[in-house]
Amino acid sequence: MKTIGVLTGGGDCPGLNPAIKAVTRKGLAVGLKVMGIREGWKGLVSEDPALVYELTDESVRTIDRNGGTILGTSRTNPFKSDEGGEKVLNKTRLLGIDALVAIGGEDTLGVAAKLHRKFDFPVVGIPKTIDRDLSGTEYSLGFESSVQIICEAIDNLRTTAGSHSRIFVVETMGRHTGHLALKGGLAGGANAILIPEYSFDVNEVCVILLARKLAGQRYSIVVVSEGAKERNGGEILKDQALDEFGHVKLGGIGHYLADKIEKITKLETRYVILSHLQRGGSPAAYDRRMGYYFGTAAVEAVLAQKFGTLTALVSGRVNLIPLEDAISKLRYVDVERDYDTEKYNYKQQILY
Amino acid sequence: MKTIGVLTGGGDCPGLNPAIKAVTRKGLAVGLKVMGIREGWKGLVSEDPALVYELTDESVRTIDRNGGTILGTSRTNPFKSDEGGEKVLNKTRLLGIDALVAIGGEDTLGVAAKLHRKFDFPVVGIPKTIDRDLSGTEYSLGFESSVQIICEAIDNLRTTAGSHSRIFVVETMGRHTGHLALKGGLAGGANAILIPEYSFDVNEVCVILLARKLAGQRYSIVVVSEGAKERNGGEILKDQALDEFGHVKLGGIGHYLADKIEKITKLETRYVILSHLQRGGSPAAYDRRMGYYFGTAAVEAVLAQKFGTLTALVSGRVNLIPLEDAISKLRYVDVERDYDTEKYNYKQQILY
Amino acid sequence: MKTIGVLTGGGDCPGLNPAIKAVTRKGLAVGLKVMGIREGWKGLVSEDPALVYELTDESVRTIDRNGGTILGTSRTNPFKSDEGGEKVLNKTRLLGIDALVAIGGEDTLGVAAKLHRKFDFPVVGIPKTIDRDLSGTEYSLGFESSVQIICEAIDNLRTTAGSHSRIFVVETMGRHTGHLALKGGLAGGANAILIPEYSFDVNEVCVILLARKLAGQRYSIVVVSEGAKERNGGEILKDQALDEFGHVKLGGIGHYLADKIEKITKLETRYVILSHLQRGGSPAAYDRRMGYYFGTAAVEAVLAQKFGTLTALVSGRVNLIPLEDAISKLRYVDVERDYDTEKYNYKQQILY
Amino acid sequence: MKTIGVLTGGGDCPGLNPAIKAVTRKGLAVGLKVMGIREGWKGLVSEDPALVYELTDESVRTIDRNGGTILGTSRTNPFKSDEGGEKVLNKTRLLGIDALVAIGGEDTLGVAAKLHRKFDFPVVGIPKTIDRDLSGTEYSLGFESSVQIICEAIDNLRTTAGSHSRIFVVETMGRHTGHLALKGGLAGGANAILIPEYSFDVNEVCVILLARKLAGQRYSIVVVSEGAKERNGGEILKDQALDEFGHVKLGGIGHYLADKIEKITKLETRYVILSHLQRGGSPAAYDRRMGYYFGTAAVEAVLAQKFGTLTALVSGRVNLIPLEDAISKLRYVDVERDYDTEKYNYKQQILY
Repeated sequence: MKTIGVLTGGGDCPGLNPAIKAVTRKGLAVGLKVMGIREGWKGLVSEDPALVYELTDESVRTIDRNGGTILGTSRTNPFKSDEGGEKVLNKTRLLGIDALVAIGGEDTLGVAAKLHRKFDFPVVGIPKTIDRDLSGTEYSLGFESSVQIICEAIDNLRTTAGSHSRIFVVETMGRHTGHLALKGGLAGGANAILIPEYSFDVNEVCVILLARKLAGQRYSIVVVSEGAKERNGGEILKDQALDEFGHVKLGGIGHYLADKIEKITKLETRYVILSHLQRGGSPAAYDRRMGYYFGTAAVEAVLAQKFGTLTALVSGRVNLIPLEDAISKLRYVDVERDYDTEKYNYKQQILY
Repeated sequence: MKTIGVLTGGGDCPGLNPAIKAVTRKGLAVGLKVMGIREGWKGLVSEDPALVYELTDESVRTIDRNGGTILGTSRTNPFKSDEGGEKVLNKTRLLGIDALVAIGGEDTLGVAAKLHRKFDFPVVGIPKTIDRDLSGTEYSLGFESSVQIICEAIDNLRTTAGSHSRIFVVETMGRHTGHLALKGGLAGGANAILIPEYSFDVNEVCVILLARKLAGQRYSIVVVSEGAKERNGGEILKDQALDEFGHVKLGGIGHYLADKIEKITKLETRYVILSHLQRGGSPAAYDRRMGYYFGTAAVEAVLAQKFGTLTALVSGRVNLIPLEDAISKLRYVDVERDYDTEKYNYKQQILY
Repeated sequence: MKTIGVLTGGGDCPGLNPAIKAVTRKGLAVGLKVMGIREGWKGLVSEDPALVYELTDESVRTIDRNGGTILGTSRTNPFKSDEGGEKVLNKTRLLGIDALVAIGGEDTLGVAAKLHRKFDFPVVGIPKTIDRDLSGTEYSLGFESSVQIICEAIDNLRTTAGSHSRIFVVETMGRHTGHLALKGGLAGGANAILIPEYSFDVNEVCVILLARKLAGQRYSIVVVSEGAKERNGGEILKDQALDEFGHVKLGGIGHYLADKIEKITKLETRYVILSHLQRGGSPAAYDRRMGYYFGTAAVEAVLAQKFGTLTALVSGRVNLIPLEDAISKLRYVDVERDYDTEKYNYKQQILY
Repeated sequence: MKTIGVLTGGGDCPGLNPAIKAVTRKGLAVGLKVMGIREGWKGLVSEDPALVYELTDESVRTIDRNGGTILGTSRTNPFKSDEGGEKVLNKTRLLGIDALVAIGGEDTLGVAAKLHRKFDFPVVGIPKTIDRDLSGTEYSLGFESSVQIICEAIDNLRTTAGSHSRIFVVETMGRHTGHLALKGGLAGGANAILIPEYSFDVNEVCVILLARKLAGQRYSIVVVSEGAKERNGGEILKDQALDEFGHVKLGGIGHYLADKIEKITKLETRYVILSHLQRGGSPAAYDRRMGYYFGTAAVEAVLAQKFGTLTALVSGRVNLIPLEDAISKLRYVDVERDYDTEKYNYKQQILY
């Protein structure tokens, strides 16, 4: 083992740079050469030599304070073309890279797993997704920073909501799972939280909001995942706000819901779409430490030749799990028994 | 002079509470009773007695740390009904209020000016608008807090823009004037800033963005006021993105522009609409001091019976100007000679 | 079970208010009356009736955004007087309080445990200490907010350290344990971290700092716990910087260390004592959720009559442990195998 | 005019980098070569060629988001040696630098003025000091960022002060003038503000604090400049807390005052010394714009050959004044008529 590579794939988030720094420092500390691969898997598919460069102590020294990834990222999937896998193998060999650390979410790690399965490719993964919906690990990089941003956004909207006696709908990310909306809304003290795992009846939501108004509350905050689905009685609605899969059109649920709430309740309602603001900024202290732990653990796994694995948080501790375990299925919010605690009913949370 | 009233009207913003606190403390310090009037002019039109209550040292003690207004606000204009003006007079008399401090923007202050003109109503105004487009005063409450929020949002978007090699369009408030976009974009280091006072040619913008890409910059940030107008050659465009007044549809320019930029440049482009986040949060230290100065000056103007006036920042100092001067016309960005400095050409700023 | 009480004792920190809110809301939701007890145990020892009042949904509605505790706190220990324990029992009975939730650190929980042991007092504890050094639980309220503050302080000092080519010594809290310095310093990217569990040789520290200077680094950051101890060879030093217990004088280690480093290295060195800033401000999103979980779990424990217990984080999940387990001994940093991960050597961290 | 140089001297602060960026961009835009000089005047006295390097668009692109100065700084005064002035002239000539922009406070600008006076040296200054005590200009870089930090620190200390019913003493910078303490304390809502321009009687302060306690306030905040002086009757005290100049020992007034207050009032009192935290962090939006304006104006002054001048804020606008005007004397707080407004009595502020 002389040289390792590191890449980041998929959507960026705070925590990637601390992980890159940790991989680099730990690698250098044990005598390895560390190559940074730009633009995710694209850097290993493309023949462009500029997409790979050597990382040094100096080049990673200050990066942990910044969100995003100094390596850049892409959604390139090598397996979309026939010889994509071979290209990755060849370029890796050509560069003299003996093992790879791949930092990413479901797609990036899926490629890593397939490379390992098909070609016995020497790869270790690090989990990253602000959605925190990978199986097998209790944490993925970016989540806590994102929750903090949502929480602060709600804090800040309260004053304007209260001044105008308005309802505010805050749309968060989360196409398939509601962890982000749930934890961000909980931390921010939202009055209703709507998530993909529990399709909502807009009248039920309006009842909560009207009851609060009657009880003298000047305003209410509703947090909604971008992938939340409306139901009417037992049926998921299919109307113009929904796409062919029964999801409310992405990016559109906040607007849609605010309109509907205002129409039903006659209460002034506004919406804010947090959008990319959820991915930006300096990593929270929590993500910096997790990036450090995961990055260091990944290099140790490489040294121990435990390939095809993922650094994961299991029962509150950093450990290794098979890559396949993380990508086989999404980790959903357990509506009856909210995962984090195994104790509290999700419905309590949204209806409090 | 025994009793004064204070109200806040129009959109809320950070800085209102510090001004309310200063009016109250200064009023109490000189032996006045201070009545808080809820929901702007509505509190003086409505017969609901609950809309007026006495303010004490204790009730304002902690409010300066919070955005918004403890008095609530509304867009009620008494002059929209025939006897609205008389209602205000009667209720004021009934409450024993000898003079009023009205904190607000063009509309709120316009009502104050008309009351003073028509009825010799004893009122002093305090300027408030995050747009900072009132005439006669170099500052209005809320502006600096809002600029700070825009600046931080741009800081935070840089990491995600850079990670994905994207163009980001950031839509700010500003229907008629571009001060907010201009100063926020300048502080945040935006690469192009589009404002209502200078209709933009989208191709000109794309040239800047493409030139940056060619020069090796991974990403660009475009800041656009919600009221920016597109032109094509000499003509302001009238198409489906514009409403009947030739404005790009409000709330829609960010989305519209991002689509058009992506289509023309083929560069991945995303947008974020800062929306109500620009009005929220704790007031910047600057707005807290200005609220204090304006609030104190307003009570002093009341004591000196200088009614029909506005507390204003003139040549860097707090002073009184006639209310009429502030509302006669908007203060636009001087595109050739940016107001703040009388020195720098606006075009330099947007094209740097 | 009709009425419960809740109190907060010891040093305040962010996260107490979210826990008080959760106890109150959960209590009200299951039909209990909830009494807030002011000033920690003092509120149950004193005969002053004003120290106890009923908590309502409205009185706790907004508190989770604020650090500190609305109940106030004190370091009163009932067992310091002979009849202190009986007084607590009597007042509790008098108030009709059927069970108590006590939120605090070692001292507060120690009193709770003794009350339970001696009088079978119906009490459930919630762990709170920014030091995170209670046994038995992987988390105590306040820790993450404090780590975040330390991390941001280091971020902010970097620019001034770099501009002047200085060494900065940052003194954190932590009399007996170094979790706070270790995690805060790790997140902030400190170059050396000195903690009570591993007495430092100042020459060893200076070697790190000089080596960095020689390698071209403009500045270095040293984080030191207030309770860190100096050794010389094998002996803990006893000189004028140490008190009778061999601790460097509290509040003084930052100053002492900066002087000594400057004298030895001849490099300009400054220090900052974070002091009470570490306890202030709005709780991080993490502490708000943990406050919610612990508070809810405590009421559930009360309902299940599981007294003499503590809500705790065990293997990443909220659970109940015996109160005695938390207070029997401090949880120290395991210098050889840093607790959080069971993987990384502490010395690696301080010397990286 | 082909080449200009830029340097930063004295203590660093947020706003220097935006000014360096503006000088560079404006310089490049008009066809000049721009040389960055490291470590203040030291870079022009020393023969080390590494202390001067060419600045490019790329090297300044991202710096405006960061506090401090990429050029580094020092307190070197060329005139402390006999041929220091000539050395500066020679090195400037050798480097082909036709004009210099010097960014700094009283000392740095004093050197610039003397160079211009003695040698007709082509220099333009930009004012920088968080103390904002230069004559002739209403603003100097760093002030607003520093005020914001003080304001937030006070906000954050309130929760801990309130939880424990304590008095907090917050020591700010300001050896000779109290602008920083006064504006920071005003924005933060301090209950007493002690500044060098108005020597304090500790009993007077304690009367305010005790009166607040009696009125039911749980806590109080006192802000004190590091250079505040105590008096007793008509005399400035000379005791062990004062140095030979009658100043309370620097760094020590916070501690000294807290002890004395606690002794007199018997109320628990703590102190926090903000120290270097006041100089750190990302520049506030206000400082970023002022850095831009001053930097651009400085290059325009160079082009117009208006040497021996300082970019200044005069009556709310950027203008040029003679360098000599800025350094002839300090601008003190006008205790009777606080400068900013010409309206409000300083004593009102500290005693409210």
